[in-house]
Amino acid sequence: MSTTWVPGADDSGFGADNLPYGVFVRGGAAPRVGVRIGDHILDLAGALGEPEFFADSLNPFMARGSTAWRSTRSKAAGMLAADAARPQAEPHLVPLAETRLLPPFTVGDYVDFYSSLEHATNVGRMFRPGEEPLNPNWRHLPVAYHGRAGTVVPSGTDIVRPCGQRRGDTGEPVFGPSTRLDIEAELGFVVGTGTSLGRSVPTDAFAEHVFGVVVVNDWSARDIQAWEYVPLGPFQGKSFATSVSPWVVPLDALGAARFAGREQVPAPLPYLHRGADWGLDLAMEVRVNNELVSRPPYAAMYWTPDQMLAHLTCNGASLRTGDLYASGTVSGARPDQRGSLLELTWNGAEPLELDFGRRGFLLDGDTVAISATARGMGGGTISLGEVRGTVVPGNC
Amino acid sequence: MSTTWVPGADDSGFGADNLPYGVFVRGGAAPRVGVRIGDHILDLAGALGEPEFFADSLNPFMARGSTAWRSTRSKAAGMLAADAARPQAEPHLVPLAETRLLPPFTVGDYVDFYSSLEHATNVGRMFRPGEEPLNPNWRHLPVAYHGRAGTVVPSGTDIVRPCGQRRGDTGEPVFGPSTRLDIEAELGFVVGTGTSLGRSVPTDAFAEHVFGVVVVNDWSARDIQAWEYVPLGPFQGKSFATSVSPWVVPLDALGAARFAGREQVPAPLPYLHRGADWGLDLAMEVRVNNELVSRPPYAAMYWTPDQMLAHLTCNGASLRTGDLYASGTVSGARPDQRGSLLELTWNGAEPLELDFGRRGFLLDGDTVAISATARGMGGGTISLGEVRGTVVPGNC
Repeated sequence: MSTTWVPGADDSGFGADNLPYGVFVRGGAAPRVGVRIGDHILDLAGALGEPEFFADSLNPFMARGSTAWRSTRSKAAGMLAADAARPQAEPHLVPLAETRLLPPFTVGDYVDFYSSLEHATNVGRMFRPGEEPLNPNWRHLPVAYHGRAGTVVPSGTDIVRPCGQRRGDTGEPVFGPSTRLDIEAELGFVVGTGTSLGRSVPTDAFAEHVFGVVVVNDWSARDIQAWEYVPLGPFQGKSFATSVSPWVVPLDALGAARFAGREQVPAPLPYLHRGADWGLDLAMEVRVNNELVSRPPYAAMYWTPDQMLAHLTCNGASLRTGDLYASGTVSGARPDQRGSLLELTWNGAEPLELDFGRRGFLLDGDTVAISATARGMGGGTISLGEVRGTVVPGNC
Repeated sequence: MSTTWVPGADDSGFGADNLPYGVFVRGGAAPRVGVRIGDHILDLAGALGEPEFFADSLNPFMARGSTAWRSTRSKAAGMLAADAARPQAEPHLVPLAETRLLPPFTVGDYVDFYSSLEHATNVGRMFRPGEEPLNPNWRHLPVAYHGRAGTVVPSGTDIVRPCGQRRGDTGEPVFGPSTRLDIEAELGFVVGTGTSLGRSVPTDAFAEHVFGVVVVNDWSARDIQAWEYVPLGPFQGKSFATSVSPWVVPLDALGAARFAGREQVPAPLPYLHRGADWGLDLAMEVRVNNELVSRPPYAAMYWTPDQMLAHLTCNGASLRTGDLYASGTVSGARPDQRGSLLELTWNGAEPLELDFGRRGFLLDGDTVAISATARGMGGGTISLGEVRGTVVPGNC
């Protein structure tokens, strides 16, 4: 396991083999890009002096491409691993507690996939009982929709309970605060380098375009969604907020988590054939008011992120630096591995009995935290951090 | 009718009562904001000197808000109407032919509605024959979905025929160039001033947030869309390109086109009640290879744009300067008023017999132009210009 001279960092999940990127401010200074190491941030603007680290988002750095990403990671690792580098690096180490974290990147387009076989099956069973739970297209393409990029918010942002239309008891619509506010535990993929219109990104070019990953909570108002979504998909049931974690873990930190990916039957069409191993064995945890309610296993996902990107671009749709695409709810086969309250409570019919009380869907004041960890290259554990939000009452 | 001293402008559709905004470059100079007058552009950077006109998009100007919009319109109108102002203004008049137009604004989020009763009914009849053509939610809320902001392209951009999955003759999916490439004639609304998360925009605040309108062609691959869209809506069938016209016509130019809007039965919920008149009587025209194929009447639209904005924000979703929302296909009651080839050819079953040949869906090399006009405040006609694109072969 790689080690670092930074005190306390080695066993923190933010050791020398993680080095995720974020944006911070300290005091009244301008924002800067840094990498997290233990309870500190290595200020890359100070340590390396390159202009793209004097920035309020990772976008300028991400736009430089994979050669720059690897070179920077190598330099930061060198400064933090070797005792000989300590005198040079230590002046650029900032205690995390003295900083305020900013949203790590400016979102271009936001796309949300539907890549979990168990999640799609659970939803199908609940809403189309007695029928085949998966739609005919599901095993042939990674189903997705565009979400609202302007309401992707950083971890810690309060979530205002959305107002909207739902079908009332009489069958007629009523307007008011959502009565079935839910979460979706997801992994998000952040695009570093864009493409031009009319080009596609084959699966084997995934790591040239995707910079890293974040944890995503795709807040969902199930009552609004159920009434609105036919035939054009989810809109107001999702667009009020999507939360992302503050640290972007680069793909290069996830080497030990990679595997071939779950078997796919039938084999997908050639443009979706997998090249390198981009299945990811990540352990996710969902907590409501600090109580663990689920452990979604990312390894169970059916579609891999290289396939998602190949599909997203197969029609010639261009990419921009900062585009975010999320996996869709991560759910495993076991009931305690489901990534949404919709599934955990079977649409509210089987509420969770928790230490602080019973929960179907979320109440005002509830705090949800979703975190993820993976095996690091050195054999230890690396953390993707967490995404957190508290529900506050709606304005209607 | 207001007149202008600019030669030829009075009867051009771009007279003194239109004054739409765009972004242009001339020679090797930096981009500037201007208003179109006849075959010229009044260079606002030169004429007024304000910093937001030395810009490559309308966003900085739009972000200043409705007081600045009205003040600028008044100044420009004064310079162009009064002979006494000619000596001061004429040096800032640039022949359109000497310029290159840029995309007029940077798109935040792009949302596409489904606001035509006739379009939704036609689609329902085609795809769910024998059933009630409108879904239960349709008369209660303006149905919409998020599209891809990064592939909103300026008029004149070639449209690469998208590749994707469609259901083949055997029922199994096949991958290849779309065989049913279509258009959708729409009107687009450009957001000038944003809002913060958790706030909604009531219908009577519409004109404080929306700056103006453009003509939109929402290119659609019907075969890809039909296979992918259940249950999360259109994705790859739409995301390859959406074209917008180069001139943003401010709402203040549309006063004579306003009316109460089409009657709505049942009355919508209170948050969708109309305040001011935002029905718009615009005449649209669709041409394929210069031949007129349809005249969609915007006045026939069921949902008005103030209702669309109130719905879009009723869940607390925030707005950003540059957000674009489009009306959805504009179709009237008569067959020659339909705004898509899907409807004009009844899903290809009744091809159009045109001077240059028969058309079901678009062939490579076809050029589509969509234009719109309205009555101006002075009694003449104002033009919204046109959005144009030519189909080129796909890359698969």
